[in-house]
Amino acid sequence: MNIGRRGFLGGAVATGAAALTGCATCGTCCGSAAHGKVKFKLGMAGWTMCKRKLDEALDIMEKADFHYLCVKDYHLSFEATDAEIAAFKEKCAKKGVVPYSLGPDYMSSRERADKVFAFAQRYGAKMILGVPYEVAPGKKDVWGPDRHESRKLCEYISTLCARYDIRYAIHNHGPDLPNLFPTGESVWEMVKDLDPRMGLCLDIGHDFRAGKDPVESVRKYASRIWDIHLKNVSEPTVKGKARLLPHGAMDLKAVLRALVDVGYDGVCSLEYETDYEDNLAAVAECGGYFRGLVDSL
Amino acid sequence: MNIGRRGFLGGAVATGAAALTGCATCGTCCGSAAHGKVKFKLGMAGWTMCKRKLDEALDIMEKADFHYLCVKDYHLSFEATDAEIAAFKEKCAKKGVVPYSLGPDYMSSRERADKVFAFAQRYGAKMILGVPYEVAPGKKDVWGPDRHESRKLCEYISTLCARYDIRYAIHNHGPDLPNLFPTGESVWEMVKDLDPRMGLCLDIGHDFRAGKDPVESVRKYASRIWDIHLKNVSEPTVKGKARLLPHGAMDLKAVLRALVDVGYDGVCSLEYETDYEDNLAAVAECGGYFRGLVDSL
Repeated sequence: MNIGRRGFLGGAVATGAAALTGCATCGTCCGSAAHGKVKFKLGMAGWTMCKRKLDEALDIMEKADFHYLCVKDYHLSFEATDAEIAAFKEKCAKKGVVPYSLGPDYMSSRERADKVFAFAQRYGAKMILGVPYEVAPGKKDVWGPDRHESRKLCEYISTLCARYDIRYAIHNHGPDLPNLFPTGESVWEMVKDLDPRMGLCLDIGHDFRAGKDPVESVRKYASRIWDIHLKNVSEPTVKGKARLLPHGAMDLKAVLRALVDVGYDGVCSLEYETDYEDNLAAVAECGGYFRGLVDSL
Repeated sequence: MNIGRRGFLGGAVATGAAALTGCATCGTCCGSAAHGKVKFKLGMAGWTMCKRKLDEALDIMEKADFHYLCVKDYHLSFEATDAEIAAFKEKCAKKGVVPYSLGPDYMSSRERADKVFAFAQRYGAKMILGVPYEVAPGKKDVWGPDRHESRKLCEYISTLCARYDIRYAIHNHGPDLPNLFPTGESVWEMVKDLDPRMGLCLDIGHDFRAGKDPVESVRKYASRIWDIHLKNVSEPTVKGKARLLPHGAMDLKAVLRALVDVGYDGVCSLEYETDYEDNLAAVAECGGYFRGLVDSL
């Protein structure tokens, strides 16, 4: 039997990291056959809340029944003092939200990487999401400077992972940025021989838009998947646009089944990339859909 | 492949009754194996919107991705003129909503039954939901007068069904009102020998709270189930309270599977009986959950 909405995660939040051991639907496992198999959880990518101040984002998460947040620096400055970090965590806890990780942070220098890792250590994060890049002068990608994957910076970040004992998950972006980790495969190729704490934040929507099969990506790169960006899109091409999870072209059931098969025990964080200023109902529907699929696994 | 949120039901609404032939998830069947089996649709019980004016209710339905409404008389007076009915339908259509039925209407006289059927005919409704009762003077039920099921009134309504060729679905209420259709079974016993247009609006939550197994009720009374009130509750007793669909004690998957097995082709209308004044996220999550279960059938 599941627990009620009001009681959701009451205990889990209080125990901090232990909250991450619950099942996707109820925070603490409800004991059904399906839930027993599912080790992953539903979360919110900070980007979904990019037009919201922290308080608004947490209100939405509470109402929409989301309890894990990947923290972007517009919700908590990565220069925050210890007191500010404590206040942030307290605010999240009051809303039943576990702020489980930091990023993605687009970084192009050792200095930025140093700063983010040092902050993550102070914060107590076990994982950073990021995109290590370098700029090709004079060129432009779809959003501005022509950013390329930086092998050199990844090698440096690999040493930081070892020094701090913090995982680093590189986010893939899809065919819009062909030189900046378009697919899960491109991240895998970058990290496979680096520190074992270097891995993937597999964005299944972008992987799909880049012509890949996210089910296959999950199975192939499972040993280094630290985080999932959950979404659905209208078609498996660069033209694919954000869709509510039930109304996209990707077979999310198959992806979740693959995540169960490989024993994924991290978070599937919803990145809903449209209607940022009016997305309460949309994220709630997406979260409900995820739970419906999970309860049917 | 599903269609996008914006395009939802665009064609179906325009064709009126034909909209009811689509599948639960996409309005027009998307062709997947699961959808092929599912003939029922997601809808909204007017009671969920009892604290909302019509415009607000339709805004919520649009945002929360609901496209079928069972109309209560506070959203459209059952004394409305033909012009008012037309304006109402036009307003619904603009929001992608099919107002598929009327009620439930609690009725205790032939005059009320006459009035509602005559209105339904003018409206063009193929179905009325109702609760035919008589009052035992001097007694009280949990909400006021002691209302009992009225065999006499049901027999009269049965003649109206035949005269107007309109179905009448009696709503069951659960153990709170033991003399007023507490279960699907009690409705079945009332209607089984009446006009074949007399049937059930099976409220699975109340059936469950009354100690019945809604899966069994679906299978037993399938031949007369005209509508479903969809909900989940905290426990299968009179103490059972409203819960978000993913967080209740009832196995909704099993209920939906039974509905597929019996070929149910009506609407499953969400009746979410709490937080009436702030339920956008809740209904959206419930709708998403329903779709997730349906996509996994």
